[in-house]
Amino acid sequence: MEVNRKRLRSDLEATAEFGAVPSEEGNGRTVLTGTTADRRAREFLCERLRDAGLTVRIDGVGNVVGRWCPESADPDADAVAMGSHLDSVPEGGIFDGPLGVYAALEAIRTLQEEGIEPDRPIEVVSFTEEEGQRFGGGLIGSGVAVGELTVEEALAIRDGNEVPLGDALADIGFRSDGRVDATEWDAWIEIHIEQSERLVDAGVPVGIVSSIVGLTRCHVEIVGEANHAGSTSMEERSDALAAASELVLDVEAATDERPGVRDTAVATVGKLDVSPNAPNVIPGSVDLTIDVRDVSYDSIESITAAARESLSRLKRERPVTTTFDHAWDRRPVEMSPRLRRTLREAGDAANVETMDLHSGAGHDTMHIGTVTDAALLFAPSVDGVSHNPREWTDWEDCATVTRVMAHAVASLSTE
Amino acid sequence: MEVNRKRLRSDLEATAEFGAVPSEEGNGRTVLTGTTADRRAREFLCERLRDAGLTVRIDGVGNVVGRWCPESADPDADAVAMGSHLDSVPEGGIFDGPLGVYAALEAIRTLQEEGIEPDRPIEVVSFTEEEGQRFGGGLIGSGVAVGELTVEEALAIRDGNEVPLGDALADIGFRSDGRVDATEWDAWIEIHIEQSERLVDAGVPVGIVSSIVGLTRCHVEIVGEANHAGSTSMEERSDALAAASELVLDVEAATDERPGVRDTAVATVGKLDVSPNAPNVIPGSVDLTIDVRDVSYDSIESITAAARESLSRLKRERPVTTTFDHAWDRRPVEMSPRLRRTLREAGDAANVETMDLHSGAGHDTMHIGTVTDAALLFAPSVDGVSHNPREWTDWEDCATVTRVMAHAVASLSTE
Repeated sequence: MEVNRKRLRSDLEATAEFGAVPSEEGNGRTVLTGTTADRRAREFLCERLRDAGLTVRIDGVGNVVGRWCPESADPDADAVAMGSHLDSVPEGGIFDGPLGVYAALEAIRTLQEEGIEPDRPIEVVSFTEEEGQRFGGGLIGSGVAVGELTVEEALAIRDGNEVPLGDALADIGFRSDGRVDATEWDAWIEIHIEQSERLVDAGVPVGIVSSIVGLTRCHVEIVGEANHAGSTSMEERSDALAAASELVLDVEAATDERPGVRDTAVATVGKLDVSPNAPNVIPGSVDLTIDVRDVSYDSIESITAAARESLSRLKRERPVTTTFDHAWDRRPVEMSPRLRRTLREAGDAANVETMDLHSGAGHDTMHIGTVTDAALLFAPSVDGVSHNPREWTDWEDCATVTRVMAHAVASLSTE
Repeated sequence: MEVNRKRLRSDLEATAEFGAVPSEEGNGRTVLTGTTADRRAREFLCERLRDAGLTVRIDGVGNVVGRWCPESADPDADAVAMGSHLDSVPEGGIFDGPLGVYAALEAIRTLQEEGIEPDRPIEVVSFTEEEGQRFGGGLIGSGVAVGELTVEEALAIRDGNEVPLGDALADIGFRSDGRVDATEWDAWIEIHIEQSERLVDAGVPVGIVSSIVGLTRCHVEIVGEANHAGSTSMEERSDALAAASELVLDVEAATDERPGVRDTAVATVGKLDVSPNAPNVIPGSVDLTIDVRDVSYDSIESITAAARESLSRLKRERPVTTTFDHAWDRRPVEMSPRLRRTLREAGDAANVETMDLHSGAGHDTMHIGTVTDAALLFAPSVDGVSHNPREWTDWEDCATVTRVMAHAVASLSTE
C-alpha cells in the first residue's frame, strides 16, 4: 500500500494556515479552542472528511468524527477509530495534533484506493481541547469520550475570562448533541510526533509506544508583600519572586538529585505570573504551575514531595506564605499488547522499521486506553523540538507512519 | 498657621476614587497616564485649583500648573513651586503622588486664609508620568521641565501597544503647548510619603530629605528553547526560567554579600515575563527588569556588575543566550542646603519635630534638583508600605507636613 504523500502534506499545510503566527524560523500557529482559528481548522477538516465520502458528526463537546462505513462493513460492529486533535499551544507547531488527524484520514483514503473492503466501520476523530491552553487541564474531548467527565461538566469549564467552554463552542458553531463513546470502539490508534529525539537518534522512522507517562500538575501561590523597590530596605522585604526562584531551582534539582527518582522523570515550571509585575515594585505574589511526569508514579510522587518540602523551607526562611494545590494526577497508562503486536506486524508488512519507546507527553490516547484497546505511534521530530514553531517532521516520515497505520487498520477492520 | 485637614482629606479621598480598584485591605487605585482615570484625576485637580483662584495652564506634555499671583506678587519674579504627580503604579496606593499635589494646594489656601501677601508667585505642579508604568522609565513630565528631554521626544515615547504619549495625552484632552520650565523657579519643594519606616520608627512626623538615591534600571532577556514539558528530557532542555531564577537570586545576594556595597543599597527584579508561559511548555524566553538604588553610585555599579557576572556564568553553565541592556541611570542627587535650612526653621516655627533622612525612591525632585534649589519632605508611611493598596499615612500626618510646607513657602515667597 502507498499513501498519497502530496495529499497528506497539502492537508497539513492548509491546516497550518489557521492561526498561523509569524516566526523567524519555522512555522508557528496558535489555535486555542473556540477561536476563529479553531473554527476554520474544524471547518476545513469537516470538508476534507466529506470529500472522502465520510459521514461527519459533531458531539456535545465539539469532538468531530468522520465515519467510513461502506457496504462491506457491518454498521453495528464496533468501529476501529483513529485520530488526534487540532488545537495547539500558543505559538506551537503545525504537526502536534493535525498529523494524527490527517494521517487517519489519509489511511482511510489509502484503503479506499486499494479497494479494501472493511468488515467494521472506521472512524477519524478530532478531540476538543487536548492542549488545555484555554480551558482546564487539557484532554477534555477524550475525557468526555471515556466518561471521565460528563458533557455538562466539560461545557461548564471556564477560561481565564470566565467564558464557559459551552459558549465558546457554540460561538464557533461546534456544539452539537450526544457524545462520542470510546467504549464502543474495537480499537483506537493515534499517530503523533515524538516530541523527543529517540527516533532520530536511532534512525528509525516509526515508534510504537509501550506506555504513556503519568502526570501530576500542581498550582503554587507564593505571597509576599508588594512594596516600593527603592524605599524598602532588603531586610524589610518579602519578595515573592525571590522565593519563587528558589522553588523553581529546587524543582529542577529534584529530578537529578532525589533518591528514587528515575532518569526518565521530568519536572517543569512552565507558567509563572508575577503580581503586580512592575519594575519599581517588589513582587507581592507569584502564581506558578509545576508539571511532573514519569513512567513510574513513585518517581512523580517523590518530586512532588520535594516541591512541598521546598515550600516549607521557604516559609521558614522568608516572610512569605504559600499555597499548594495538587490540581490533577494521571497515572501512567500501558498501551494494548494486541494493538502493539498488530502495529509491529504492520511495520513488517509495510517494510518499515519500528522501535518501542515510552511517551513523555500525555495524549488523548491516555484516556482512550482506560476503556478500550489503544495504541500510539510516533513519527520522528527533528531535534526533538515541539510546542514551538521550529517543530518539524519530514513529509516522508509523515507518509511512512501513515502507511504503517493503513496496514494496521486494514488488518484490524477485516476478519 | 493651621491647615484645613478636612479639606485636604476630602481632596485626597475624591482623587482616590479615580481608577479605584477593589482590594481586601486598604484603598487601591490604578491611574496610568492617558487613561480615563488619569483624565478624571486631572480634571478634578484643575477644578480645585480654579476654586482656589489659581490660574491653570497645561503644557506640551500634560504637566498641570496652578499659579497664584496676587497683587502683592511681582509677576516677573521667579516663582516658588511645589507639587508632585497624580499617576500611580497598577494597584498602587492613594497617597503616593496626590498627597504632594494637594498638600501644595492646601498650603496656598492656608496662606490665602492667613492673609499672607507673597512677593513672588506660587505654583502648584502635577507632573505627567512620574511612575513610568505606561510610558518609558518614568519622571517624564519633570524631565521635560528641566530640559533632559524635549517635548517632542517625550511625546514620541510609546507604550507597550505602540501608542505614543502624545496621542494618549491628546485623547484625554491634556496636551497643550509650551513647557513648564523649572529653571524659572526660585525654589521647588515636593511633599511625598516616605514609603519606608524610618519616621514611624523614630516617632517623628516630618522628614527632610538630604539626598535622593541614584538609580540604575536594566533590561535582561534570557533565551532558551521552548519545548514540550513531557517529552524533552532534563538533559536536552534549555529552560529560560530556571536560568532567570538563578539571576534573581544572584541579584538579591549581591546587595548583601558583595564587597563595597553599602547597607543602604537595594536591588529588585520587579517585572518578569515568561514566554510562552504555558504549564506544559518549557519556558523559551524570559524578560526581566533589574532596579538598583543607593546613595552611593559605586555601590550601584558593583551590583550591576554582579548581575552581568551572573549572566556570564549562566551562559557558560546552561545552554541559554542573554542580552543585557543598561536602560538608564540616574546619579544620586543632593537636596538644596538653603531649602533644607528653611524647612528646619519652618518645622520650628510650626512646632513640628523634623528629622533628616535619605530618599530611596526616585522622585520628580531628582530632576528639579539638577536645575534649581529643590527639597523633598516626607510624611510617615504606616508599615513603610507603598505601591500597594495598604499604603497609608494618617490624615493628621498629612496635615502636619502640609503645615511645615505652608510655613516654608510663606518664608520663601516673602522678602
